[in-house]
Amino acid sequence: MKVTRSVKNPIIAPKDVKPSREDFEVVCVFNCGVIRFQGKVLLMLRVAERPKARHGNEVRTVFYDHIQEKITVKSFEKDMPGIGLHDSRYIYTPERIYLSSMSHFRLATSTNGIDFDIDEQPCMEAANVYEMYGIEDPRITKIGDDYWVNYSACSTIGGVTTCLAVTRDFKNFERKGVMFTPDNKDVAIFPEKIHGKYYALNRPISAEYKLKDIWISESPDIEAWGNHRFLISTREGYWDDGRIGCSAVPFRTEAGWLEIYHGASKDNVYCLGAVLLDLEEPWKVISRSENPIMLPEEDYEINGFFGNVIFNCGVLVEEGIVKIYYGAADTYIGYAEVALQDILDDLK
Amino acid sequence: MKVTRSVKNPIIAPKDVKPSREDFEVVCVFNCGVIRFQGKVLLMLRVAERPKARHGNEVRTVFYDHIQEKITVKSFEKDMPGIGLHDSRYIYTPERIYLSSMSHFRLATSTNGIDFDIDEQPCMEAANVYEMYGIEDPRITKIGDDYWVNYSACSTIGGVTTCLAVTRDFKNFERKGVMFTPDNKDVAIFPEKIHGKYYALNRPISAEYKLKDIWISESPDIEAWGNHRFLISTREGYWDDGRIGCSAVPFRTEAGWLEIYHGASKDNVYCLGAVLLDLEEPWKVISRSENPIMLPEEDYEINGFFGNVIFNCGVLVEEGIVKIYYGAADTYIGYAEVALQDILDDLK
Repeated sequence: MKVTRSVKNPIIAPKDVKPSREDFEVVCVFNCGVIRFQGKVLLMLRVAERPKARHGNEVRTVFYDHIQEKITVKSFEKDMPGIGLHDSRYIYTPERIYLSSMSHFRLATSTNGIDFDIDEQPCMEAANVYEMYGIEDPRITKIGDDYWVNYSACSTIGGVTTCLAVTRDFKNFERKGVMFTPDNKDVAIFPEKIHGKYYALNRPISAEYKLKDIWISESPDIEAWGNHRFLISTREGYWDDGRIGCSAVPFRTEAGWLEIYHGASKDNVYCLGAVLLDLEEPWKVISRSENPIMLPEEDYEINGFFGNVIFNCGVLVEEGIVKIYYGAADTYIGYAEVALQDILDDLK
Repeated sequence: MKVTRSVKNPIIAPKDVKPSREDFEVVCVFNCGVIRFQGKVLLMLRVAERPKARHGNEVRTVFYDHIQEKITVKSFEKDMPGIGLHDSRYIYTPERIYLSSMSHFRLATSTNGIDFDIDEQPCMEAANVYEMYGIEDPRITKIGDDYWVNYSACSTIGGVTTCLAVTRDFKNFERKGVMFTPDNKDVAIFPEKIHGKYYALNRPISAEYKLKDIWISESPDIEAWGNHRFLISTREGYWDDGRIGCSAVPFRTEAGWLEIYHGASKDNVYCLGAVLLDLEEPWKVISRSENPIMLPEEDYEINGFFGNVIFNCGVLVEEGIVKIYYGAADTYIGYAEVALQDILDDLK
């Protein structure tokens, strides 16, 4: 399959994003939601920041403190008893585990889809007990005049959850709470009703049965979900034999609903593939990619905070082109184009 | 607290239940839903059966085969290579794990609440891929003329789930699918709307954060659920420090919604306690039992298929008495009465 990456890739890097506070630094800018809004391409960036150390023996963390009800910075001495700093993602302390960075959402807009103006402040940030460790991986679904945003959130109280919000202007976001009981993330809401019901893909985890599969759920109103059904699972011996989850918001094609999903192999190489679902009964699978549409090949996809990752939270489909804005190596945002017909031909 | 057990306890034992097939035997009759229906006490019994071995070297399992779409019996030689029979609940084979028994639901009715007429055939049994390992722990909520039944179901495809069905006559049950994404069980639906919304307690599992807590969710229509919120967790050093889950369908009192829940200690002693929730905002906890209301004390509660268990799926509250029908040692059904006022006084 011919995938054309932008020559300007990565189109957004951490250095392009201003920290939200003077004492913070931006570590990663990656998995972004995308929509066309007021004629422009609008990205909702996941920006991961961390508090800068103020001296050589300091390490600091940031989290949402649900007791104080505010985002809070905490400082540790690197040589304090019981501290663990061996994994760059975490700060282990005797009391509990902290993350070394926290994500918020930042808007970026562009007229050409490649060069983006990036806001200086977050449009959404952690604001309740379920979002203790920040907010991650936004996906945007336009239904009528409403833009529904769902995103992952983690906490020691709520586990791994997906939260829901709605906006009309990308300035005011009305939070609608946790969408599915934990653990469940990688959620994508279909952009229209099908025979009177809304549908969403999601990825629950059954610890008891060791399952991390994609399910499909239905709703009368986008806020409440039921009749949850298993849809597809990992495939032994394939590129997606380790874990799968939905990525892009599904979109309508003549052949069926097309979902660009992510799959990882057992050795953690994250690729994108496609699954085609029945237009009338979207819980029925028509076909699925034998091989990935995109896999990590470029340096900025292979090397980063967490390497060998291509991760997507949304695409634009315009004039027969699938425009993919994707997180690369959990550090950058890349852009690539694929002809829709190529994906559909591959699924035949 | 004064708990009065029936002198006829256990009021129902496996020997009282006729197997649904001649080649099966009833192993356990326990966790039952309860409601007053057409003037009588109606129990929806969880009956666990297993196929009888036909010769000394045989062990047989029963499960719902979703490929063949029927309940299927499978036979193994006890000395086949790779078989594991060390745990009485399971049959381990190289191919997969089977259960040694499978549960269905059986109706039992009584005019005096103690002596029951038990149907000879199931009213509900495993019927789809999510119910591969049977159906368990029914809870009944009456809303208008509808009786909503939710129950646990397990499978290698769906994990640990809760399914929903509705009936008006306890003969025809309309299935409504999986209520919450896996793993989630111990679900109880409130019997009335509160400010325009239905509510349900449930017990999701976060494997990632090692959480097994009670949550509360809301719904416009009982079938679709959203705005999931953490409610209560296990308590270190208490009788419920191992795991908790809701038990009875909550009921309205002057002091608040009263939920009889189950808690297990870290050494797996299952007791009943109570939690009082705000009448107008049921996601707010007013108080919670310091000590259990009921704990396993009698021989039939201590010794059985899985001993030291008192487990409840519903109560009748009549004339100031909380009438508790409970599973004892995962083998029998017991009956006990507690004065409602005693429970409320204990929660002050």
